[in-house]
Amino acid sequence: MSSLQEVPSRMRASVLESAHHLVVREVDTPVLASDQVLVRIAAVGVCGSDVHYFHEGRIGDFVVDAPLILGHEASGTIVAVGTEVSADRIGERVSIEPQRACRICTQCKRGRYNLCPSIEFYATPPIHGAFAEFAVIQADYAFAIPDSVSLEAASLFEPLSVAIWAHKKALTQPGSRVLIAGAGPVGILLAQVARAYGATEVIVSDLAAARRDRALEFGATSVIDPTVVSADEVPEVDAFVDASGAPSAIRAGILALAPAGIAVLVGMGADDVSLPVSRIQGRELLVTGVFRYANTWPLAIELVASGAVDLESLVTSTFSLDRVEEAFEATRDPNTLKALITP
Amino acid sequence: MSSLQEVPSRMRASVLESAHHLVVREVDTPVLASDQVLVRIAAVGVCGSDVHYFHEGRIGDFVVDAPLILGHEASGTIVAVGTEVSADRIGERVSIEPQRACRICTQCKRGRYNLCPSIEFYATPPIHGAFAEFAVIQADYAFAIPDSVSLEAASLFEPLSVAIWAHKKALTQPGSRVLIAGAGPVGILLAQVARAYGATEVIVSDLAAARRDRALEFGATSVIDPTVVSADEVPEVDAFVDASGAPSAIRAGILALAPAGIAVLVGMGADDVSLPVSRIQGRELLVTGVFRYANTWPLAIELVASGAVDLESLVTSTFSLDRVEEAFEATRDPNTLKALITP
Amino acid sequence: MSSLQEVPSRMRASVLESAHHLVVREVDTPVLASDQVLVRIAAVGVCGSDVHYFHEGRIGDFVVDAPLILGHEASGTIVAVGTEVSADRIGERVSIEPQRACRICTQCKRGRYNLCPSIEFYATPPIHGAFAEFAVIQADYAFAIPDSVSLEAASLFEPLSVAIWAHKKALTQPGSRVLIAGAGPVGILLAQVARAYGATEVIVSDLAAARRDRALEFGATSVIDPTVVSADEVPEVDAFVDASGAPSAIRAGILALAPAGIAVLVGMGADDVSLPVSRIQGRELLVTGVFRYANTWPLAIELVASGAVDLESLVTSTFSLDRVEEAFEATRDPNTLKALITP
Amino acid sequence: MSSLQEVPSRMRASVLESAHHLVVREVDTPVLASDQVLVRIAAVGVCGSDVHYFHEGRIGDFVVDAPLILGHEASGTIVAVGTEVSADRIGERVSIEPQRACRICTQCKRGRYNLCPSIEFYATPPIHGAFAEFAVIQADYAFAIPDSVSLEAASLFEPLSVAIWAHKKALTQPGSRVLIAGAGPVGILLAQVARAYGATEVIVSDLAAARRDRALEFGATSVIDPTVVSADEVPEVDAFVDASGAPSAIRAGILALAPAGIAVLVGMGADDVSLPVSRIQGRELLVTGVFRYANTWPLAIELVASGAVDLESLVTSTFSLDRVEEAFEATRDPNTLKALITP
Repeated sequence: MSSLQEVPSRMRASVLESAHHLVVREVDTPVLASDQVLVRIAAVGVCGSDVHYFHEGRIGDFVVDAPLILGHEASGTIVAVGTEVSADRIGERVSIEPQRACRICTQCKRGRYNLCPSIEFYATPPIHGAFAEFAVIQADYAFAIPDSVSLEAASLFEPLSVAIWAHKKALTQPGSRVLIAGAGPVGILLAQVARAYGATEVIVSDLAAARRDRALEFGATSVIDPTVVSADEVPEVDAFVDASGAPSAIRAGILALAPAGIAVLVGMGADDVSLPVSRIQGRELLVTGVFRYANTWPLAIELVASGAVDLESLVTSTFSLDRVEEAFEATRDPNTLKALITP
Repeated sequence: MSSLQEVPSRMRASVLESAHHLVVREVDTPVLASDQVLVRIAAVGVCGSDVHYFHEGRIGDFVVDAPLILGHEASGTIVAVGTEVSADRIGERVSIEPQRACRICTQCKRGRYNLCPSIEFYATPPIHGAFAEFAVIQADYAFAIPDSVSLEAASLFEPLSVAIWAHKKALTQPGSRVLIAGAGPVGILLAQVARAYGATEVIVSDLAAARRDRALEFGATSVIDPTVVSADEVPEVDAFVDASGAPSAIRAGILALAPAGIAVLVGMGADDVSLPVSRIQGRELLVTGVFRYANTWPLAIELVASGAVDLESLVTSTFSLDRVEEAFEATRDPNTLKALITP
Repeated sequence: MSSLQEVPSRMRASVLESAHHLVVREVDTPVLASDQVLVRIAAVGVCGSDVHYFHEGRIGDFVVDAPLILGHEASGTIVAVGTEVSADRIGERVSIEPQRACRICTQCKRGRYNLCPSIEFYATPPIHGAFAEFAVIQADYAFAIPDSVSLEAASLFEPLSVAIWAHKKALTQPGSRVLIAGAGPVGILLAQVARAYGATEVIVSDLAAARRDRALEFGATSVIDPTVVSADEVPEVDAFVDASGAPSAIRAGILALAPAGIAVLVGMGADDVSLPVSRIQGRELLVTGVFRYANTWPLAIELVASGAVDLESLVTSTFSLDRVEEAFEATRDPNTLKALITP
Repeated sequence: MSSLQEVPSRMRASVLESAHHLVVREVDTPVLASDQVLVRIAAVGVCGSDVHYFHEGRIGDFVVDAPLILGHEASGTIVAVGTEVSADRIGERVSIEPQRACRICTQCKRGRYNLCPSIEFYATPPIHGAFAEFAVIQADYAFAIPDSVSLEAASLFEPLSVAIWAHKKALTQPGSRVLIAGAGPVGILLAQVARAYGATEVIVSDLAAARRDRALEFGATSVIDPTVVSADEVPEVDAFVDASGAPSAIRAGILALAPAGIAVLVGMGADDVSLPVSRIQGRELLVTGVFRYANTWPLAIELVASGAVDLESLVTSTFSLDRVEEAFEATRDPNTLKALITP
């Protein structure tokens, strides 16, 4: 291991002991494996899944049955590297892709490492996340960012990657007409990325007027209030990306698709949803979903560095490590778009 | 118009006057447009949709509100051609692709003419089908068949095309593991075509033991009785093609898909079906459907001429034009696979 | 036929009688077929192929052996329509896609109508072009343009389509690094379209400093003087699009490709070119070419209407029908980018 | 490390000391890394590249400047495993994929690990091959074979993989018409795999009558003598795969392609070849090459186990480790198809 300066053996972290029990305390600084880097965390975005773990103590089969550090949208500075990693990287400002694939299974070797059955992911039991002073990640999953990109922006490459991956699945391209359901942080990123991919119509639907207004600021060419516009009044689109998880929005979105259109389901909701199968058949629609992302960071860097996507304006509030619970609370406020933790 | 011999101005046809009222009577021989050929019909397969129109007088929005000639799986011999068509084609044995696209809309010009919003299709009101002595079709939709292919086989290029189209959507390829739900005529064709595409595992599920046995004769490498094998016991597959329309089979098939697997829904059933959306997301599955087919006849000819697909063995009974209703009745018999009408 | 006002039976046209013999004279106004529209031509771009026909009297196997009206980059206003076309279209401002495919061959039915063996194309013997007061085109190849788009811009949708088609083949996408050889009109359009497709590096090479400067105004992120920068100094790119036809540029471009990169050859030059086959193998590069385009007008409209592509600034001079030869001469001037004829 | 029995520290190997100097001598048994398996080699195919290294002492930039063990088409039995590998694998009969990618570069993470710039490959300096009693390989590159597949066949999964990879690039599918130039071992495998992919026309061209006859035994539907059949007499095909490396064959093959056809260059020959670029443009052909393969072993196993491809009949002679030079000599005999070394 090489390090710029001595790395303390203990660090402060926000630890979820069990549902509703979040404490800041000292824990061991993570041990650096030979292919990893140790990152002093600068900023971490708060995601709905963090809030969900806090309230429920689980997401599906993933149960918090041991203390867990949350947070998976992270950036920081490399302060130490494993034996296989060049010491030149110490001091590098990086955005973290918070997953670790096995690299040897069929999925990994075919380039779909997000579908690796052995994948590990930050803040998913039992893997610790980044609401802490330090975190480790394999070296190739820590991406150097240009000087022009702030560490705050770099922490949000993770949700940006979700949006990029969704549009890759949606085959969004110049001239595409895209419908996005839900104008939360992911919906807003989906709108921005749609424009970066050349979509000329980007329609965002959301129940809240404040969110619809924000969508218009971030790339939407028009917005829809689903309580007013009925499903059959939605203009025909080439792609529909759901960031709401709401069955009614999913249904309306699929019905809006032109023949051979593509629906990409991003938002998590019910396990089962009734879908208009006869329409899927009659128009040969394609329905798919996304599970995280693969190989998106290089493009995320390009989109942010070139100004095509604006991440900093998404940050509506910033909290210290001691105030994570307060940050979780803030996400209930419709005026909050993205809260950051700065350990 | 050129013709080999004089074409009679009247012909015999089996006409569906309204639900349950099928009569054989003389009608005008169809008028030949400049780009069409007139085919003396040799054989016509009976499809479930014909039976459905007979019993219900409608399929969805398509209502039999005027006398309609059914039958869309047809072959025959060209006896006359329109002014734009070479007279050399008179005498040609042909298989009919029973649709007519507008050729000028976006879908047509992109090669997806089956999704043409103006498409016309045999035996779909108000377009007449082929349970008659003659039928017309645009010249390029009448495909010459080699001497080695019988007219009986040529009548079944239509359901074979459904199977080909489904496997194109399923991206079936050498080494694929494919699950097919339903071992009726389309399921049997799906199994045969799966093998022609190089699939090495072709698993067919059906409730009826007789149908499962038949599937094994026609290319299935194994069969499943869904009343015995639970959804989570089905082996993992790369593609699932549903030819049952049954919600439980669709669900089980989707759950059997490996990560990045593809589900192709062919069978018609309920308009809405509850699908396991969280699984579609977590494994990035792809769900789509087929609406008829496009550009499949050349391959259908190759598959049959080369012996890769056996159509003749699908024919379990043959009926004259006067016995169409009897043929419809026969389809209820589990021992019937495919009934042909020979006008 | 419907028409707004009486269409004169004779019209003025610039006719290439044989190589070097271009005269303006009265000819019959083209006869309108049932599926066509008659367009009063507003503007026609001058293309290198027009100039080539003028000087050589042929391009490859296409020989001007009868009087021919040149010009295939055209816009105008519909003044009459055939019997199958809605009279509502009279008065419509349109951009002309100057080709006519057979619609029934394999290529047409698969959506690759540009590869139709029977294709007819404006200003390609024996089909007349648009250096005339009027021209006819099938109705679906005349695309209505929005009010915001000028007829001058609409005449240049044709070369814009070449650029769009090339980038579709190049799979240009957000984050792509693209090298373009040649900064003539097509090279300039390729640079603009590369940006519209999200390319973040657009490198243009040209021998002429003036052209390199212009490329920088139209979207290039950097330029290369191939007399100074050797082939192995060109930065690695994902796609290379040749608009020069020069063997040395083609070679340098292919050598610049990253593994799995794509080369698209647009510029016409020698029939045979020596290519670095061992590099194509070792990096699994993909080399292809374009022949016109298919289904590009809708996107061309979007790109221009949205401002993503600027066509009007490409027009450096305008000439009346009597001065076509002068316009041809102007194309030799390095300061000319695009000359228009306004009949 | 776990092992079934004690593995000797020294082993016999055929070592290329320098061009033309091949000796059998004792060398250290390779050291097993934690993620590797040690394979007792059963059979190794002789490849043209082995013969080339023997005669020239180099292939392109790869120079034999230290003793090198040749041989990269290998099978055998696992006799020991590294610490990270399950000891259950000891005793497993395996086919070796003889490459080792870095797993962390862009190419690896996108599933194109054959294009990894750091790739290591058996029998390519400085990596030893398998003309020896033992060889090591990363565990996931040693593929278990079914009992029904012989170790002789398993040694030839490597050239079979070349053929599979070529047909994946060629998009060969049911109904494809394929032209293959060269009827050596790779050409013969290309013909067999073409059939497995459903190609209905498989035309093989070769100068030698004996090779053409053999092609007909192994799947070719017709053969061509290029000294008799001129380039413009070759029937139109959808895909052309070159296994000859001969410029005249490459040219003839590209000219035989139908519009939108694909040429895949497999055979190694001159670095530069003059290609018919105007035809590539006019028909929008696609020319590419292959560099080894990725993710092909699972399909290779399926194709051989199912009987779709016959590898054993390719073996025309077998030699002991002491007779490698004799085996190299045998490859000059036109009656030799594939020679095996059995260490």
